[in-house]
Amino acid sequence: MLKIGIDIGGTNLAGGVVDDQGKVIVTDSIPTKADEGYEAVLGRIIQLVNILREKAKEEYPDQQIDAVGCGVPGIVKNGVVINAVNLHWKNVPLAKDLYAAVHIPVTLINDATAAAVAENRFGASKGKDDSVMYTLGTGVGGGIIVNGKVVNGAHGVASELGHVIQEPNFYSCNCGKNGCLETYSSATGIVKQYEHEVEKGLKTDLELEEIAAKDVIDAAREGDEAAVAAFEVMTDQLAKNISNMVDILDPEVFVIGGGVSHAGDFLFDKLKEKAGKNITFKEVVGIPEIVPAQFGNDAGIIGAAYSGEYV
Amino acid sequence: MLKIGIDIGGTNLAGGVVDDQGKVIVTDSIPTKADEGYEAVLGRIIQLVNILREKAKEEYPDQQIDAVGCGVPGIVKNGVVINAVNLHWKNVPLAKDLYAAVHIPVTLINDATAAAVAENRFGASKGKDDSVMYTLGTGVGGGIIVNGKVVNGAHGVASELGHVIQEPNFYSCNCGKNGCLETYSSATGIVKQYEHEVEKGLKTDLELEEIAAKDVIDAAREGDEAAVAAFEVMTDQLAKNISNMVDILDPEVFVIGGGVSHAGDFLFDKLKEKAGKNITFKEVVGIPEIVPAQFGNDAGIIGAAYSGEYV
Repeated sequence: MLKIGIDIGGTNLAGGVVDDQGKVIVTDSIPTKADEGYEAVLGRIIQLVNILREKAKEEYPDQQIDAVGCGVPGIVKNGVVINAVNLHWKNVPLAKDLYAAVHIPVTLINDATAAAVAENRFGASKGKDDSVMYTLGTGVGGGIIVNGKVVNGAHGVASELGHVIQEPNFYSCNCGKNGCLETYSSATGIVKQYEHEVEKGLKTDLELEEIAAKDVIDAAREGDEAAVAAFEVMTDQLAKNISNMVDILDPEVFVIGGGVSHAGDFLFDKLKEKAGKNITFKEVVGIPEIVPAQFGNDAGIIGAAYSGEYV
Repeated sequence: MLKIGIDIGGTNLAGGVVDDQGKVIVTDSIPTKADEGYEAVLGRIIQLVNILREKAKEEYPDQQIDAVGCGVPGIVKNGVVINAVNLHWKNVPLAKDLYAAVHIPVTLINDATAAAVAENRFGASKGKDDSVMYTLGTGVGGGIIVNGKVVNGAHGVASELGHVIQEPNFYSCNCGKNGCLETYSSATGIVKQYEHEVEKGLKTDLELEEIAAKDVIDAAREGDEAAVAAFEVMTDQLAKNISNMVDILDPEVFVIGGGVSHAGDFLFDKLKEKAGKNITFKEVVGIPEIVPAQFGNDAGIIGAAYSGEYV
């Protein structure tokens, strides 16, 4: 049985047909053109589903498509997009509208949560009923799975780990609060922290213009003073969040995805060391299992496709 | 159908027969005498179950008992007490051992989590699938229910909201960490904070010896400077935890129990105001629902009795 996943981005609608091994066997994409409004974007999503369906029928004539899932960059609840700022959508019944056109069961899921579903169904947290995923990119996305279901919450705003307040930071978050995990541990956050350390007078060999998170982490690996300081802050705060999540949910595994996760053992060893120190019941829990995500850009499509099994 | 709940405390084993309305219709208790070791305490638990059974048979001859639940002051997982410091128990198969003697299905549950079950089955969070409960007493206990099941975690240490690290505090927690919610928002914490404010030079009309949390809160209500400062810290930190739990789990309701919760609207209005300010998606969530627990001392027995429906 095949499933269709649509990753609704601010720029592009990326779609794929996913097989029962989590492989994306057919893909396509079309521009979102969110400025044209919901009805127009809905029309393009329908178009994309139909294109994918036709392609799948040609290439895999024996296989049926039994589900369509849409990953949405915003708050979703019971098939309705409550709010998606970048798309200018509020309370749009996307699941119902899409189903009316394609006649395949439709599920909606938050895009960061979709990544957690992809990892849980086929990747780094496969076979585990309870997992917590962080996606460290421009922001920090979260995906929480408890008892094999994604935690969506009473209003659809659960799993927003990026906006958990840690402790006061030198700059405020886009969300309007101060001290959010995102301001410490996102790709953006680590660069800002590095620049802050340089301003404070710490030494650095990096040029200050066009610095990316990867540059800061690579420099930290080489011992660059300001970069090391930024990396320590970033990992202190993420580890604090992880050890707190052990007290709250005690998941079987933590998965870390997004660009920053490519830092490898340098990042993961540090997180395990720091999170391990703050586990309340160290003797029982030991060092929490913290592993890198296995999927990259495809995670949104795969997770959306399989979201029906998780909501 | 009736159920038996046993609340295993460090001093007493308190037991009750609970009816299907959550009413404790028969009670009894015997001393725990934990120093005599697990086998001896197990014997007394069996004895207590049998006493309750006999009493119920006499008074309610038409009704059967279909479950026994034990609330344990420690970490439980799959019917095993992994660790209960005050009882000196480690990895004891209490559910199996008790079942072998009483031949009624036995479930174990953490005692703070039991309170959350009592509230969810019959009290303040009745009818809600997702709820978070704080019990503010000597420590801070937690009970999390997601999709109608208690969150126990991979190692049995979930729902430990008291040990979530908030931000650095002037004294460390018994758990060995610094900045735990318990050090800010427990009955003990608010008294310590008050004493700290007095030491810092804030004015107070309270005598310093034998001060209880209730005295501090009552004084804060009257405008006592040091007490107000302590109450603000206590509510700041609990509200921060609540608003973070909205980002993490977005439950339908927060329930607050334990002695401190008797402070009434003075406490609850403050918590709603402060937590409301830090909600990431204010427009969608509004002010979180925060309500007082409905059960007092019986919560442990009622929740233990009904734990089988929640694990």
